[in-house]
Amino acid sequence: MNNFDKPRSNCGIVGIYGNSDAARLAYLGLYALQHRGQESAGIVSSDGEQFYRRLGPGLVSEVFPNDDVLQKLEGHIAVAHNRYSTTGGTLKQNIQPLLVNLKSGPFAISHNGNLTNSGELRESLVDDGALFQTTTDTEVICHLIARSRENELHDKINGALREVKGAYSLVMMSGDRLFAARDPHGVRPLNIGFSDNTFFVVSETCALDLVRAESIRDVEPGELVEISKEGIKSWKFASGQKRFACIFEYIYFARPDSRVFNENVDKVRRKLGKILAQESPAEADIVISVPDSSNTAAIGYSRRSGIKIELGLIRNHYVGRTFIQPKQDFRDFAVRVKFNTVKGVLKDRRVVVVEDSIVRATTLRQLVSLIKQSGAKEVHVRVSSPPIISPCYYGMDFPRKEELVAHRLKVAEIEKYIKCDSLAYLSEQGLLDAVSFDEGGYCTACFTGEYPIAIEHKIGKFQHEKNNLNDDQE
Amino acid sequence: MNNFDKPRSNCGIVGIYGNSDAARLAYLGLYALQHRGQESAGIVSSDGEQFYRRLGPGLVSEVFPNDDVLQKLEGHIAVAHNRYSTTGGTLKQNIQPLLVNLKSGPFAISHNGNLTNSGELRESLVDDGALFQTTTDTEVICHLIARSRENELHDKINGALREVKGAYSLVMMSGDRLFAARDPHGVRPLNIGFSDNTFFVVSETCALDLVRAESIRDVEPGELVEISKEGIKSWKFASGQKRFACIFEYIYFARPDSRVFNENVDKVRRKLGKILAQESPAEADIVISVPDSSNTAAIGYSRRSGIKIELGLIRNHYVGRTFIQPKQDFRDFAVRVKFNTVKGVLKDRRVVVVEDSIVRATTLRQLVSLIKQSGAKEVHVRVSSPPIISPCYYGMDFPRKEELVAHRLKVAEIEKYIKCDSLAYLSEQGLLDAVSFDEGGYCTACFTGEYPIAIEHKIGKFQHEKNNLNDDQE
Amino acid sequence: MNNFDKPRSNCGIVGIYGNSDAARLAYLGLYALQHRGQESAGIVSSDGEQFYRRLGPGLVSEVFPNDDVLQKLEGHIAVAHNRYSTTGGTLKQNIQPLLVNLKSGPFAISHNGNLTNSGELRESLVDDGALFQTTTDTEVICHLIARSRENELHDKINGALREVKGAYSLVMMSGDRLFAARDPHGVRPLNIGFSDNTFFVVSETCALDLVRAESIRDVEPGELVEISKEGIKSWKFASGQKRFACIFEYIYFARPDSRVFNENVDKVRRKLGKILAQESPAEADIVISVPDSSNTAAIGYSRRSGIKIELGLIRNHYVGRTFIQPKQDFRDFAVRVKFNTVKGVLKDRRVVVVEDSIVRATTLRQLVSLIKQSGAKEVHVRVSSPPIISPCYYGMDFPRKEELVAHRLKVAEIEKYIKCDSLAYLSEQGLLDAVSFDEGGYCTACFTGEYPIAIEHKIGKFQHEKNNLNDDQE
Amino acid sequence: MNNFDKPRSNCGIVGIYGNSDAARLAYLGLYALQHRGQESAGIVSSDGEQFYRRLGPGLVSEVFPNDDVLQKLEGHIAVAHNRYSTTGGTLKQNIQPLLVNLKSGPFAISHNGNLTNSGELRESLVDDGALFQTTTDTEVICHLIARSRENELHDKINGALREVKGAYSLVMMSGDRLFAARDPHGVRPLNIGFSDNTFFVVSETCALDLVRAESIRDVEPGELVEISKEGIKSWKFASGQKRFACIFEYIYFARPDSRVFNENVDKVRRKLGKILAQESPAEADIVISVPDSSNTAAIGYSRRSGIKIELGLIRNHYVGRTFIQPKQDFRDFAVRVKFNTVKGVLKDRRVVVVEDSIVRATTLRQLVSLIKQSGAKEVHVRVSSPPIISPCYYGMDFPRKEELVAHRLKVAEIEKYIKCDSLAYLSEQGLLDAVSFDEGGYCTACFTGEYPIAIEHKIGKFQHEKNNLNDDQE
Repeated sequence: MNNFDKPRSNCGIVGIYGNSDAARLAYLGLYALQHRGQESAGIVSSDGEQFYRRLGPGLVSEVFPNDDVLQKLEGHIAVAHNRYSTTGGTLKQNIQPLLVNLKSGPFAISHNGNLTNSGELRESLVDDGALFQTTTDTEVICHLIARSRENELHDKINGALREVKGAYSLVMMSGDRLFAARDPHGVRPLNIGFSDNTFFVVSETCALDLVRAESIRDVEPGELVEISKEGIKSWKFASGQKRFACIFEYIYFARPDSRVFNENVDKVRRKLGKILAQESPAEADIVISVPDSSNTAAIGYSRRSGIKIELGLIRNHYVGRTFIQPKQDFRDFAVRVKFNTVKGVLKDRRVVVVEDSIVRATTLRQLVSLIKQSGAKEVHVRVSSPPIISPCYYGMDFPRKEELVAHRLKVAEIEKYIKCDSLAYLSEQGLLDAVSFDEGGYCTACFTGEYPIAIEHKIGKFQHEKNNLNDDQE
Repeated sequence: MNNFDKPRSNCGIVGIYGNSDAARLAYLGLYALQHRGQESAGIVSSDGEQFYRRLGPGLVSEVFPNDDVLQKLEGHIAVAHNRYSTTGGTLKQNIQPLLVNLKSGPFAISHNGNLTNSGELRESLVDDGALFQTTTDTEVICHLIARSRENELHDKINGALREVKGAYSLVMMSGDRLFAARDPHGVRPLNIGFSDNTFFVVSETCALDLVRAESIRDVEPGELVEISKEGIKSWKFASGQKRFACIFEYIYFARPDSRVFNENVDKVRRKLGKILAQESPAEADIVISVPDSSNTAAIGYSRRSGIKIELGLIRNHYVGRTFIQPKQDFRDFAVRVKFNTVKGVLKDRRVVVVEDSIVRATTLRQLVSLIKQSGAKEVHVRVSSPPIISPCYYGMDFPRKEELVAHRLKVAEIEKYIKCDSLAYLSEQGLLDAVSFDEGGYCTACFTGEYPIAIEHKIGKFQHEKNNLNDDQE
Repeated sequence: MNNFDKPRSNCGIVGIYGNSDAARLAYLGLYALQHRGQESAGIVSSDGEQFYRRLGPGLVSEVFPNDDVLQKLEGHIAVAHNRYSTTGGTLKQNIQPLLVNLKSGPFAISHNGNLTNSGELRESLVDDGALFQTTTDTEVICHLIARSRENELHDKINGALREVKGAYSLVMMSGDRLFAARDPHGVRPLNIGFSDNTFFVVSETCALDLVRAESIRDVEPGELVEISKEGIKSWKFASGQKRFACIFEYIYFARPDSRVFNENVDKVRRKLGKILAQESPAEADIVISVPDSSNTAAIGYSRRSGIKIELGLIRNHYVGRTFIQPKQDFRDFAVRVKFNTVKGVLKDRRVVVVEDSIVRATTLRQLVSLIKQSGAKEVHVRVSSPPIISPCYYGMDFPRKEELVAHRLKVAEIEKYIKCDSLAYLSEQGLLDAVSFDEGGYCTACFTGEYPIAIEHKIGKFQHEKNNLNDDQE
Repeated sequence: MNNFDKPRSNCGIVGIYGNSDAARLAYLGLYALQHRGQESAGIVSSDGEQFYRRLGPGLVSEVFPNDDVLQKLEGHIAVAHNRYSTTGGTLKQNIQPLLVNLKSGPFAISHNGNLTNSGELRESLVDDGALFQTTTDTEVICHLIARSRENELHDKINGALREVKGAYSLVMMSGDRLFAARDPHGVRPLNIGFSDNTFFVVSETCALDLVRAESIRDVEPGELVEISKEGIKSWKFASGQKRFACIFEYIYFARPDSRVFNENVDKVRRKLGKILAQESPAEADIVISVPDSSNTAAIGYSRRSGIKIELGLIRNHYVGRTFIQPKQDFRDFAVRVKFNTVKGVLKDRRVVVVEDSIVRATTLRQLVSLIKQSGAKEVHVRVSSPPIISPCYYGMDFPRKEELVAHRLKVAEIEKYIKCDSLAYLSEQGLLDAVSFDEGGYCTACFTGEYPIAIEHKIGKFQHEKNNLNDDQE
């Protein structure tokens, strides 16, 4: 059930400082950010001296099945991580937060994003005798810190971050300090919240609502923040670089009840639907969404077009990560497992289906077929983002370029392939009109192929895994 | 997370005949019916000689985690069961399908509903030396069949069903035969589907869609159906009794994409919303649902009232059955774990919240508070069913009468308790207007306190559990 | 590793009355009796009202891995069971103690032995509408008790025991009473112990030593004992029948530190070795045992023959129940896994190997080969029991008659088959000379083929399992 | 049950080269060496390119419960490890074989022994930016190898081994090569075996017998051996240093069917018994051993003294690592769980109990009490090693010095403490007379307090664990 037409591999990160219930608050944060990564979860906590760790594959509720496991994670500081990655690269030792032993003591780190020069850095570190424990790019940062000749930890970190390139939002912990940092271009979100003397650092603000904390501000691009008993300190390890916030956070990743990059996701997403309706109207009786990810855009489309919205697809929320196939090949089975149609709603209607994005189009193709089998007279697909033509090197996991349907086919050809009556994408200009930051300021590389941050000549998900270790740790 | 304001303890049942992949088809059926019971699941399959069983506590995906466990369930016949029950009564041996050894061979049975004279029958059977293995009412049927002096199995079953009273939809299996039966009043749904020489018997038709089977007809009230190599045979073990279909199936239980008691659930549910809007209009800017159960009624309300529908609440679908509480008491935490508000949508708006039913009102109270904290100017609660004042003895699990808020308080008092600006329920007449069967034909006991089927003087969930056995079977 | 040349399927049973730590004492009893059954274990405890049960496959230490599971088994009464059985018949529901619900309340039973007329009884009970939950012969006793028209439980039990035939030692529990019974021929052992107001009923006295209890007396053949607050009561449900104690308990089953049938096992076993040395001397340099089961007999042989005893074989006690085979076929691997030779001891010696019994001879054959490879000049096998020519129907599990090497081959032929320099068995007279009960009084059917208790014409381990149910309960 | 009076923390190591079934052969080796470490087990295998690992806490049969887990360990090379360590230091990441990524590829290592300068080396490596993954001394070797400026792996290893001090037998694997090394003093055993083009490197020769391999020779003190397609190569990384073989291997650790340091353990152990009988005779009727560890010495004692040997104690081999205590305090319970007496043997006898060594004496004290309770007239304890007065820093795990009974008490006082009629230890000269290597050549530090290899001023089991990480990895 993992082959649905969506990008993946973004992560959710959480940091807590100043609460004797730090691990449980981190757990709540992970839980609110579960949509950002569902393959593994982990928390490291500390009282400033002792460190406590628990991590494992699976959902937050699987890795932390009862209060006993959280009770063991003592202390008033915690960092946590949700992770999404494709099967090949799921080594147990890669599950975050990573934890290493610096000379000064344990150091834990959670990373959302992707470094673009980690291959080169790793090679030179290994040449110099470094022993890597994982195949993550994140570990490079740890070794750079360990080898720094600076005296203060924040200087070591600033130095390390000046060497790495790419997209990263980080929370880190060592001694009695919590650190947070964001790459100079601010590709991934990271927000600071506060409540009752407790500091929160979270990927999205929805993680603050659950614990009734207030968002204070974003960690700034190129900023390192240190939170300790003495409050917040801040350093700019880089400056003068242009912001490139990932626009896909608005289209699909972030939850609609979150605020990222200083805008309400719900508001942007609704605008995407409205502009889409304006750019690409349709003669139709009803608008339906593909629940739940395009619900908001569908409402925007309905509002602007005046076509009434309906619940035409029911999503089964009990689909686990594995789903057992029957022997017989039921047509469109993969999509039927996840969605069923409400026949009374669709029968004899001309239907607009609003989808947020298309990667491979295989799911959408089956959905269109399903809707037609249920009696729809016409199916008009409207996509609230431009065609995806190029992979992401900054923390999203797309299929290979060749599998992106819009890389291989023109819109008219995709329309034919998915057998709908009409297909329209949002324009790039329409996309940018929905967001409010001036002068660009967004990374749209997946729609344009233009990469704002330089990448190593040879980059790939498994660049660090050439000596493939097959670990069957019990 | 189990204390949400909804009735429970309905079950989902499935029978398959005539497919070498019977267990996998039963698994798919259970999966589509997961909403009817999430505490245990089980499948018994057979090739007509050998019987194979697997059952356990948890979701379908937990009891059947991989294909290996399904591969062991050989044969072309299967019966299956999803179950919901409160903790106290969850004995391992009660997990269905029950399987007993008749003289003629193994006999498996799945039951949705509740018998109302099982206590008396059990007492007399025990007096007569019967050894009961479970504390379920279902086992009474097995003993009655075992002791029948009839020759043919269908005659034994018919005889047994003439002795039991109450609500039951059953699928049974023995030798090379699948049986299905429904009580004389037809309280719980049961539908027969067909596809490619395979017969399906399912609680709701949504279980047929997944495998592309067509619904043929309902099992009739008072009918026993036998499916074998020779096709379908049918007997009427009771007749002349009035139909009392559970109207709550339309309000909350059944999936909107199902057809039960010969009507589309979606259509009835939308009508409930429309009639509610007519009976109890509100001066408001937006209509929101409590996702997902009141989505359809909310659309009906929006359509009839002309007030636009919005997504004001986001539901977190990752909430597991257990949720670990933080030490600190965050106000409204229990509902925050499940729902978050979209502040941009609610701020400064007058909001109609459509809810499908109210049991205890504790959740709703917190929801109203949450919506107000998010800036809503007014909150008008509209409930698409009448006040629940009385428990169900026919297969739904309500809290005790004293915990039903509408049993203790008048509507005006409930309005005060949940602190909304106005509260209105659907009327009983409005409820009946939304369904189409003539001359009543529905059980509405939970709204009226009038029970159409006689019940034992002393009935309760644990009536059969006086010798409480505390089993810690590994 | 289960194919070693020994009979199996005997069981160990324990009953405790009058101690608030009853379940833990039962656990200690099971642990001391682990040698009598290693495939499953279970305890049922009670405070006279509530019953508590835990059972599962595996060793005692696996079924009861920590104190938490024992703490749940409350009350001052307990019955317990260790069981050995071949794979085919290991159904989960067959794990003892069985627990059924009589009209008067729960009733638990542990059984060591085998009924010889259970097939006929079961057939007639099923004809009469009884639903069997297990395929054990023990359940027949439960149904007979449930259907008894007597008023008092002890009368019901006495009545039931008068109907069954065969070998059985039983402990039972209901209400605030512990019962113990032994078949009229006293085939299997059962002893009563006492200490600090606590009563113990155990298969072997070694289970008393661990808890410092004193053995009071055996439960007599044909006696039902009831232990309650009022102390011990006793009934003779049968009398005038001849004793047939299983002589194999002395040869192999019982622990050498136990006293069974009023004799020290160690003493009898040593006599077997001495008489063997007398009957079948050997010209040799050393005597070795096959550790640990023939250690005592080997000492007897050494003492009487004057040939010094040596440790020639080292047994690996870490062999689990499953052992993974290498791909390559190492000669004699099956025996090497369990035993290694001490080459310095065996080299150039003429060796007497004392074995307690031979079933298939495959292991012994490999052992002889192993010893010869280690440099022994001659190997003389001496067996401290007569040739086994016939299966047991009273509670031991032999392979089928055809697999008994002494059924198919004469002693001279076996000698050739196992390639030893000489082979001798103990004579039947020698066997009887080692024990002290007058006038026979022992069952020696496995050596003679003469069965002292009548058996159903068609009996077998799986007689009750014709409707083979394949249970994969989670 | 872990407090028995024996030293611990020795390990068993295995290396395999040249067999497509390498992991299964390593598994068999671990299984034969299970007595050397029972807390964790692990295997790393390789085909020269890909590496495969499985490790975990528990017995070999628990970490490798079925063939599936071994089938995943592909390749023709393998290294493996059994480990014993006290609870405090059992971190999951410390389980061996360690596996690190050198520049040239993965490198796996299994270590038996203890380094005496690892603290200093680690400190200097960490100063230099090294990130340690474990708290083992073994990892120091990995970092030294990683940082070596040599070109060839064998040169890197030789260089690293020249820097470390202490006791170590190692097997290592990288690329298509297996390495084995032993410290310059040869403290721990390590033997090379061969069979059918397969090389084996094992702690004790008993691991060769199971797979029918022949012992070729020991790895020499100060030697590094490389095994590859081209056969065996060898380097001497140290020379001219005196041998100090651990004499305790003969007394207790090694299996009697093994050959270590070029002598049969059985032969030495029997001599210990004989010399003990000569040095400290006793007027007695029988000699008994404390099974199984002193069986051989007891035979030696019996032979030389002429007093007949008997089986007076029965050991329960089913004792798991945890044993649940009853609430009531049964006197001598801890020892009763493990041993039972054979009363018929002991009653009215004067008994010599041969024990191999005494650490705390608590067990022995209970044993003596138990034997007396069983009726023994006199109990004379004879110990086949000298008093242990000093801890081991070369790979054995003793309790702290203060807990060594012979450190605190004189022999006459110990005799009183354990309440036996007489107590005698073997003399140091007697110990050395039993072994055959010239000019000393043995480490006897635990008996003399004279440490032949220099140790860091501050050494302890947890020296590397100051930053205590509490890992609860799922």
